[in-house]
Amino acid sequence: MSLRLTNSLSRQKEDFETVLPGHVGLYVCGPTVYGDPHLGHAKTYVSFDVIVRYLRFCGYTVTYIQNITDVGHLVGDEDDGADKVLQKAQEINRQPMAIVEHYTCRHFAMMDRLQVQRPDISPRATGHIPEQLQLIETLLAQGKAYERNGSIYFDVSQDSEYGILSGRKGEDMLGGTRVAVRNEKKDPRDFALWKHAEPDHLMRWRDCLGQEGFPGWHTECVAMSTRYLGNAFDIHGGGMDLKFPHHECELAQARALGHDYARYWLHANLLTINGQKMAKSLGNFITLEDAFQTNNPLVVRYFIVAGHYGSVLDFSDSALQGAETSLQRLQQTVRALQRKVPTDFSAPGQHLQQYRERFCEAMDDDFSTPQALAILFELIHEVHRLLQQENTATEVFADALNLFQQLAGDVLGLLPETESITHSPELLEQTINLLLELRHDFRQQKEFARADLIRQRLQELGIELQDSKDGTTWEIP
Amino acid sequence: MSLRLTNSLSRQKEDFETVLPGHVGLYVCGPTVYGDPHLGHAKTYVSFDVIVRYLRFCGYTVTYIQNITDVGHLVGDEDDGADKVLQKAQEINRQPMAIVEHYTCRHFAMMDRLQVQRPDISPRATGHIPEQLQLIETLLAQGKAYERNGSIYFDVSQDSEYGILSGRKGEDMLGGTRVAVRNEKKDPRDFALWKHAEPDHLMRWRDCLGQEGFPGWHTECVAMSTRYLGNAFDIHGGGMDLKFPHHECELAQARALGHDYARYWLHANLLTINGQKMAKSLGNFITLEDAFQTNNPLVVRYFIVAGHYGSVLDFSDSALQGAETSLQRLQQTVRALQRKVPTDFSAPGQHLQQYRERFCEAMDDDFSTPQALAILFELIHEVHRLLQQENTATEVFADALNLFQQLAGDVLGLLPETESITHSPELLEQTINLLLELRHDFRQQKEFARADLIRQRLQELGIELQDSKDGTTWEIP
Repeated sequence: MSLRLTNSLSRQKEDFETVLPGHVGLYVCGPTVYGDPHLGHAKTYVSFDVIVRYLRFCGYTVTYIQNITDVGHLVGDEDDGADKVLQKAQEINRQPMAIVEHYTCRHFAMMDRLQVQRPDISPRATGHIPEQLQLIETLLAQGKAYERNGSIYFDVSQDSEYGILSGRKGEDMLGGTRVAVRNEKKDPRDFALWKHAEPDHLMRWRDCLGQEGFPGWHTECVAMSTRYLGNAFDIHGGGMDLKFPHHECELAQARALGHDYARYWLHANLLTINGQKMAKSLGNFITLEDAFQTNNPLVVRYFIVAGHYGSVLDFSDSALQGAETSLQRLQQTVRALQRKVPTDFSAPGQHLQQYRERFCEAMDDDFSTPQALAILFELIHEVHRLLQQENTATEVFADALNLFQQLAGDVLGLLPETESITHSPELLEQTINLLLELRHDFRQQKEFARADLIRQRLQELGIELQDSKDGTTWEIP
Repeated sequence: MSLRLTNSLSRQKEDFETVLPGHVGLYVCGPTVYGDPHLGHAKTYVSFDVIVRYLRFCGYTVTYIQNITDVGHLVGDEDDGADKVLQKAQEINRQPMAIVEHYTCRHFAMMDRLQVQRPDISPRATGHIPEQLQLIETLLAQGKAYERNGSIYFDVSQDSEYGILSGRKGEDMLGGTRVAVRNEKKDPRDFALWKHAEPDHLMRWRDCLGQEGFPGWHTECVAMSTRYLGNAFDIHGGGMDLKFPHHECELAQARALGHDYARYWLHANLLTINGQKMAKSLGNFITLEDAFQTNNPLVVRYFIVAGHYGSVLDFSDSALQGAETSLQRLQQTVRALQRKVPTDFSAPGQHLQQYRERFCEAMDDDFSTPQALAILFELIHEVHRLLQQENTATEVFADALNLFQQLAGDVLGLLPETESITHSPELLEQTINLLLELRHDFRQQKEFARADLIRQRLQELGIELQDSKDGTTWEIP
């Protein structure tokens, strides 16, 4: 069986055939960097991270482009209203690009904690103004775009296929744009490729009309994806909320330009909170910083991977507890195997082959991570059976360990990556707790000198103990 | 006394007067992102980090811009030859922007480990092509630049002040550019603002001549600094090796454009290895990754802070050992104070005031960090005297702790920042070593059951012990 994936464009599962043999060009719409990353971002970027990891595991060379939207994304995804970055900059009285820098940094810091591998290139919209203007000039020259009051709009009426991706028709394709701006347009469905900059608009560039303006959000991604992946590439991904208008408008431009553009469109579905849409206005908005206060980032990752990328995922405390239990069982099994297999022992690879095959079958079926995890849990069950048998050969454990490192580690990203082991706060906690336990024993045995020695030595390391009738706690003040 | 700093332009210590009251605009030339960050980068960016931290400590609002050079920096800092990024991209067969992404990431990862605070904005040269082209058009229109074979050069002969920053004259101002390119120039001192792109040159943009090319390194920094700081700003910094030709050429353009440009030019001096220039060709090139294998990044930071930014700093194992000893003494003193002062105790601030004043006097004198550290060590000495006195009031310790947190922590960046404490690999190492010591004692006392329990419990945590006649070692396989 070979890889099949659900193409949003055809709404069907299709065989995956790349433009160039052995190579995958993947473009995923990145964050608009005006606020702290939240659980919805985690859902999208963990989903595509697993997809990239699996494609690489299958032997493809992947060029993964994930842009940074740092200009032109307007509030409400509309053609008027405030630029999200600029609005934030005005709110806290900083330069727009300082906002961009800060939240770009936050995005990657949180993604790093989720063990999301960095994209190969993270192009910024402001870094590709000339490419966008060239694209717009081409559309103007072809008569597929027109100018009104210094802004440039795409002429949807010439495009009979507009709506093909989102399946929207008629009134569904109209946003909430103000009437004044709608009146500028020939057709209310038309969308802005370039917006004229008002005198107080800080982010502005000279345009092909000899005036000053800033790019429309939908144009940016066409310019950046084709700049790095060519006019025909393999996969275009993003969150489900981007399907309309963003991706529909991208596709319309690509069609007008005569580009094949993306063969497959993949959409990571939304994350809900206890069944509700997550929104600041509903007060159930959870940033990753908040989530990581009480949850190990890998538990959040596990929780996301345990769902299918194309399904809505509902976040709740109980769901997260389930993820934590499962992740612990997975990681404990791996540690148990590590204790059985000497470091330099190489795995022969003949044993347990069926688990690898079934894992890949699951992933080949539209990246079905829930199914792939189910197979890993069968393997966990089998490993525990083997661990209880006295005569299991080390070769078998070595193969099992190898499988976990590849499938749970390399592909799903659920094992802590090597460097973090010695930095693991859990391990420090566990060794300190072991010392506390020894001290407790000494006190029980009335070996007070030894008990005091432990307290004193920990204190020298900056670790303070507090004894109470409920036991001893420690802190690093 | 108020802040005075050595202006490279006047070669004198000058009083620091800002363009806008209370605000400092600082531009520092960032890395060219084609290779792994090395000790020289640490020297430059730690130096400016301390300067930024001190200015903020003094109450200034600082806008710190540090660019990323991702195009146009040619091998040998010349006007011909390969683009450093492009050369690397061809070497390892990747897209130039993937090289840029990777090494930008590496730069910040290493700077984070050195506790170098992120700049407010890290503009990329490729993100400011329109600004550069506008600048070049202005110079062309004024007749201060000219075109030859699709490249655009700055006409040095019209600038009687050229050489004023570096103090270079005549032949000293000629680089090693090939004769063919020199012949393109009216004056061999002329430098490229824009280079015509050969057909195989991957990084290219449409230019004002209607052809395609890429920016000259010296133009990029003029465009980016004035874009974010205005045409008159406070400090322009960079490594000493950038004074000529880079900064001299920046200043010439700014002069031609009629910009006041930077009031003060600061140069962080070079880092040598055992008295020799650090160079790949000499085989003494030390990346930060290498340096951090054997040294805590904060020891490297201490080592840099212990020298003056404007002096050459010689790296050697013995110098680093000295830095380690001093840093440990500093951090131990802070931990001793933390044990004396309850967490919620607020420092009255009246005690030890003279140390703060003398520290600031030292820093006000051209950011004399060696002198500032000497004063902190006087304070360390005083604190240890106070720690031995039984009747020292907690207020005094609280003031001392507060001073260290502000001066050694906030300003010099030498105290581990809070989050890293529980992630500290050293602390984990120390607690494991404490357990090994206890186990050793048990074995000496023939309490083998207890000794074995420690081994077993550590093994459960994934920590393996190896006993030999030289003692016990541990590893996390």
